[in-house]
Amino acid sequence: MIDVLIVNNEIKAKAFLNEIENKKPLFIATIATTETGKIPGLSAAGANPDFTDFTPPADAELLLLGKCKSIQGVPITPDGIPTPALITTSALQLADIPVLIVNGGVKVKPQVPFIDVNGNPGRDIRTGDSVDNVEEVIERAKVVGEQLAKVSDYLVIGESVPGGTTTALGVLTALGVDANGKVSSTLPANPHNLKVGVVTAGLKAAEDKLGKINGDPIKAISAVGDPMMAALAGLVIGGSKQGPVLMAGGTQMTAVLALINALEPKALCNVAIGTTRWVAKDESSDICGIIKQFCDVPVLAADLDFGPSQYPGLRVYETGLVKEGVGAGGSSIAAMAKTGRAVTKQILLKEIERNYASLMQIK
Amino acid sequence: MIDVLIVNNEIKAKAFLNEIENKKPLFIATIATTETGKIPGLSAAGANPDFTDFTPPADAELLLLGKCKSIQGVPITPDGIPTPALITTSALQLADIPVLIVNGGVKVKPQVPFIDVNGNPGRDIRTGDSVDNVEEVIERAKVVGEQLAKVSDYLVIGESVPGGTTTALGVLTALGVDANGKVSSTLPANPHNLKVGVVTAGLKAAEDKLGKINGDPIKAISAVGDPMMAALAGLVIGGSKQGPVLMAGGTQMTAVLALINALEPKALCNVAIGTTRWVAKDESSDICGIIKQFCDVPVLAADLDFGPSQYPGLRVYETGLVKEGVGAGGSSIAAMAKTGRAVTKQILLKEIERNYASLMQIK
Repeated sequence: MIDVLIVNNEIKAKAFLNEIENKKPLFIATIATTETGKIPGLSAAGANPDFTDFTPPADAELLLLGKCKSIQGVPITPDGIPTPALITTSALQLADIPVLIVNGGVKVKPQVPFIDVNGNPGRDIRTGDSVDNVEEVIERAKVVGEQLAKVSDYLVIGESVPGGTTTALGVLTALGVDANGKVSSTLPANPHNLKVGVVTAGLKAAEDKLGKINGDPIKAISAVGDPMMAALAGLVIGGSKQGPVLMAGGTQMTAVLALINALEPKALCNVAIGTTRWVAKDESSDICGIIKQFCDVPVLAADLDFGPSQYPGLRVYETGLVKEGVGAGGSSIAAMAKTGRAVTKQILLKEIERNYASLMQIK
Repeated sequence: MIDVLIVNNEIKAKAFLNEIENKKPLFIATIATTETGKIPGLSAAGANPDFTDFTPPADAELLLLGKCKSIQGVPITPDGIPTPALITTSALQLADIPVLIVNGGVKVKPQVPFIDVNGNPGRDIRTGDSVDNVEEVIERAKVVGEQLAKVSDYLVIGESVPGGTTTALGVLTALGVDANGKVSSTLPANPHNLKVGVVTAGLKAAEDKLGKINGDPIKAISAVGDPMMAALAGLVIGGSKQGPVLMAGGTQMTAVLALINALEPKALCNVAIGTTRWVAKDESSDICGIIKQFCDVPVLAADLDFGPSQYPGLRVYETGLVKEGVGAGGSSIAAMAKTGRAVTKQILLKEIERNYASLMQIK
């Protein structure tokens, strides 16, 4: 397909693209917040660390209402760069794709309707005890994922959880996957050493508290994961029984893949990852290098290019800031596929610029 | 259509049936609990008044899981007659219709995923101040109703709220509709005088607290309504922008119609009520007599007949106990319509009997 790059497993990737072409998806944003996301230097998903509590609910509001209610304007990085939910919102609007929010566990509830799966916000993974109620959240998310997959041709499931690549590294490591230096970052200079330090502390604390994790996915999330993972894994497992599922995200999704692989591997037959070119081409991370260690799930990337944008705040995406989030890449792919390629990357950029100017009040 | 009775506005009713035939609906159960439902003698939706807090969450669990978690067995009347959610579950299973739960406001949360629209459980309407947060709940329900209507061909929206015909009488009266002696009851001997007494006390208390209601729908729900109404009205208003909506219930739905008529009357163009024969033929209530006072919305009834059942616990429905609830009638109509009439009332009764025997552990 025009403007979609194939990043992993060409045969399965093409088959997946064929399967979703001209089909009607439902987009689900799975939101969560954690204390991990507030560790200084780890995430750019908020103007400052405490602000990360507001980013996921504000992203949810942007998707459903076209504007935020919990904050003024839209979530931004410390440098003032807008949330990737701007991309997602633009893609969903262009292709008239419906959207629902699943609350994996947030400290600040969004001021829009959301699906409750009984999740709580996450603690700092350095405690080794980061997520409550993992099995129950997975079970409930399975139930709702199956119902939602019945009403749509396929599901596109994204995430908004600040600090999510660190918890991804935690869970991947706990499950025996070598992800050191391979997870992505919202920051152009990926703070790999900081992440490894946090994860090592978390795994050590977890072993003291829970004993060896030994590949147990429930223990891995409970110890060093985040609440998005339990909800998203459940949604994918439930949804993939009924139809294809596009997991819309970057290297965070590889942690969810590893969890699904441990929980219910046959679910992976009906799954692809959809991300952005910025993740696919990122030299400071390696999404395929993670996936290939345990499965052959195809990876697609929306060939987004903000280089031609008239706005410096969007052009900066080309320097590696933000890269992905809130299903930006997957929703772009879904918008292109649903409209029979009428939505191109140029048309999408125009819509993103229009929304950017309006939401950032640029004249 | 076979096994569907036309109860009001034949021309629009037939057009609505044509429109939904062979289409794929989504069923939404809107649940709420109130202290009104615990007034002795008012409702049979629970083995005893305090038990009514558990009936809506248990109904939600039955719909999604095929069994209850919050209680043992299934919700029953004081005489041991099972919840009408048994009919709904059977209809939805037979026609493979997906289901979601919207929490209008419950004291006991269901142990299944649900959509949160920021509602709280209701107080006793005799306080004249029964429901919180009405405008916000309506707004949020509109947003999610619109999204859900986009993914399905049409919505079927039912309710589970014990004591709901009394709050219906309250809101209808507050909005100037003459509903005295016209609302239905889960009990064979409709306690009209008790209901009128409760409503009169509520309206008097409300006037002291809020001033005259004067046809204001927000004030009417806030004063003497229940939390299901705000959520359901919002769902219908949002959903009807995208496609047809079948409001699945008895005389309670006429109160929601009156609210929609006051809030956004054009929504009613895309709406029908779907109920049961037991409500349509009930001599102690008058659904059409209420509706005709303010609109021409068509009314359909599933021609359910439990007379031929082998189980006394089901045959007793023919005496006027229960009659309707949890969208029993509307979901039956939807199951018949979706399957091109392959689901008939006989086939549905067989499935209901099968589920009844299994859930009530009858050998």
